Amino acid sequence: MMAKRTIALLSDFGLQDVYVGVMKGAIAKINPHLTPIDITHQIPPQNIGAGRFCLMNAVPYFPPDTVYVAVVDPGVGTGRRSVAVSCEWGIFVAPDNGLLGGVLSLCQAQEAVELTNPVYWRSPFPSSTFHGRDIFAPVGAHLASGIPLREVGTEINPQSLITLPISPITRTASTIQGCIQYIDHFGNLITNIRADQVQGKDWAVHLDEQVISTSYTYSDRALGEIVALIGSHGWVELAINGGNAQRQLQLDYGDPVTVVFEQKLPDLSKKPHF
Amino acid sequence: MMAKRTIALLSDFGLQDVYVGVMKGAIAKINPHLTPIDITHQIPPQNIGAGRFCLMNAVPYFPPDTVYVAVVDPGVGTGRRSVAVSCEWGIFVAPDNGLLGGVLSLCQAQEAVELTNPVYWRSPFPSSTFHGRDIFAPVGAHLASGIPLREVGTEINPQSLITLPISPITRTASTIQGCIQYIDHFGNLITNIRADQVQGKDWAVHLDEQVISTSYTYSDRALGEIVALIGSHGWVELAINGGNAQRQLQLDYGDPVTVVFEQKLPDLSKKPHF
Amino acid sequence: MMAKRTIALLSDFGLQDVYVGVMKGAIAKINPHLTPIDITHQIPPQNIGAGRFCLMNAVPYFPPDTVYVAVVDPGVGTGRRSVAVSCEWGIFVAPDNGLLGGVLSLCQAQEAVELTNPVYWRSPFPSSTFHGRDIFAPVGAHLASGIPLREVGTEINPQSLITLPISPITRTASTIQGCIQYIDHFGNLITNIRADQVQGKDWAVHLDEQVISTSYTYSDRALGEIVALIGSHGWVELAINGGNAQRQLQLDYGDPVTVVFEQKLPDLSKKPHF
Repeated sequence: MMAKRTIALLSDFGLQDVYVGVMKGAIAKINPHLTPIDITHQIPPQNIGAGRFCLMNAVPYFPPDTVYVAVVDPGVGTGRRSVAVSCEWGIFVAPDNGLLGGVLSLCQAQEAVELTNPVYWRSPFPSSTFHGRDIFAPVGAHLASGIPLREVGTEINPQSLITLPISPITRTASTIQGCIQYIDHFGNLITNIRADQVQGKDWAVHLDEQVISTSYTYSDRALGEIVALIGSHGWVELAINGGNAQRQLQLDYGDPVTVVFEQKLPDLSKKPHF
Repeated sequence: MMAKRTIALLSDFGLQDVYVGVMKGAIAKINPHLTPIDITHQIPPQNIGAGRFCLMNAVPYFPPDTVYVAVVDPGVGTGRRSVAVSCEWGIFVAPDNGLLGGVLSLCQAQEAVELTNPVYWRSPFPSSTFHGRDIFAPVGAHLASGIPLREVGTEINPQSLITLPISPITRTASTIQGCIQYIDHFGNLITNIRADQVQGKDWAVHLDEQVISTSYTYSDRALGEIVALIGSHGWVELAINGGNAQRQLQLDYGDPVTVVFEQKLPDLSKKPHF
Repeated sequence: MMAKRTIALLSDFGLQDVYVGVMKGAIAKINPHLTPIDITHQIPPQNIGAGRFCLMNAVPYFPPDTVYVAVVDPGVGTGRRSVAVSCEWGIFVAPDNGLLGGVLSLCQAQEAVELTNPVYWRSPFPSSTFHGRDIFAPVGAHLASGIPLREVGTEINPQSLITLPISPITRTASTIQGCIQYIDHFGNLITNIRADQVQGKDWAVHLDEQVISTSYTYSDRALGEIVALIGSHGWVELAINGGNAQRQLQLDYGDPVTVVFEQKLPDLSKKPHF
């Protein structure tokens, strides 16, 4: 049997069309013993920020030698670079457009190459619209089969990789102003405020006139009640026990969310005034 | 290679987010040779009854030593027990909330344990909201790799497991009153009336004033015609040849359905009077 | 370990229900070392033409000894034949209803059998509504495990297989009239006009009064602009940079599309007159 590492895929291709299946066919053609794991293929189309968020949140739970093929690629066919980057969490094969920015904010890149060696691409010639099939998946399959990183391209400075910073938060002594950075399929609203920015304090989320108090789990509230909590991803999150927070609160990607530390405003949180 | 059994997953996590991918990453971290099979991850959120139905209907077609990880878990983070249960169909890892009730109505539990041994959980500490990743998937991966059931927890009496009975049916000499217990993606309406309750008899389904007669297959009716039949799951089912019965009949989970045995009402079924 | 070939699945079963999981359970029961690849399970229900298109476009990227199980089967339970067909791209197990017509238009059938040997089906007796689980998946699993094609059925003449020709195109000296044959999840509109019918010429697509000029990639146009290009499948395609062409152009399956060669009509394409 050929050498084999875990290979994991993330894209915005969806599962309706054959795109994901074809990437897996291309991988099987190179090494039929590889069994790719789907992280998700339902990143909102061309939403690099959502892809960046999902990849960053998934990676810590995978084996440390995993090869990732990540494709959210609005610039396919233009001059944007295709890269492979190694860090202690594995090897990442992706367009150089910020998709790896979240992972690289948590884990320092060790080596990076631009994918310049067509020996490891699909032949005869890659299409101009589907590098997932023609470049990223084949290169990922070769790397997961033991080909060294430097074989697949030309070394580049990891500092030159494009990072796409998440929206910044604004802090005062008593508040953190952030925003919705991801909405999951339960309708849970995940902010860009990290757990370590609120932990050890009493806090609540303020939305306009509404005060949403915190909870340890979804279910220690009445059905239909809104709750603020640290979600499983490690970010401040708004959820509704048994319901859909996005629909009920009518919030979307980028909408502002304010954390207020409660020692400053005890009355607001204990006796909501609406 | 490590020992390896088939491992199958069912949840309400959907495929949009990274939750399912992360469970598979956690499994690969424990045993990269396991290749999980997805039963479905699109159980309607927190609908234990639908999860129970789907699991019960899928299990008989899998290898008998399969390890199942089933997570529809509105009570995550509360005091509900996490369990692993063996029966002749395999081992089931799940919250103890009725999700296993369908399987256990068909197949007697042999052994059951409460998951109390954190050695087999993700370390450092499981989150309060994602036991699928932190407890159920890791325990399932260890069991599928050959760890004995009693290693992962404390023995409990299988009789103490929570069962969630499906809605009862009501019988008279000439009728069975049941309800819709599942709606599939074709819009087929699956009732809680079992094949063996109607087989060998002439029967039709009555919905308000409408009489729906039976058929052996979907396609021996005109396009768009409603038909009652025994579906592939083994339950009385309403379908439309080339159409969507849920949309056309405007029925939903729990809505009543009446089977009428035809020797009692021959005129109704042969000459619909509307 | 049992012999093992790549096995790939295509259907209209969707991922909401347990149908696909159950097919994989049936495969694992026969050979737990097989790891099926999903091409797609989201063919529009009972749309043989869309299934035909997707299968034909995916197959060239898979290993050449792959076994395909393809199930879009509105005639299940009727007299339509179940078949297995070999060609240089692998073995195809499917209902004989035109689903294989696209593959067979590109690659000549070598051998074909009608699936008549119940030894390779699920026992006791296949249901009348789910041959995917009871016949196609088990036969595919046996073939992928090394059972010879002639074992699973009775030889038939490959010429007798049903083909479903795609809608014909109409050509004049300066135009090709075709139609939309597939719509992908990005909303890209894929016509039935092949790349080799336009390559090496200057051309544009005319829709009513609108002239859509060509581009090499999606992204060398302004955001929101419509573009005609050769898509990754090798067909003339209409797309919108950063948008959804189906929604914006309000086109559907079968709607007409005209390619006009530009040397004949230079004014139209260079200075759109609307």
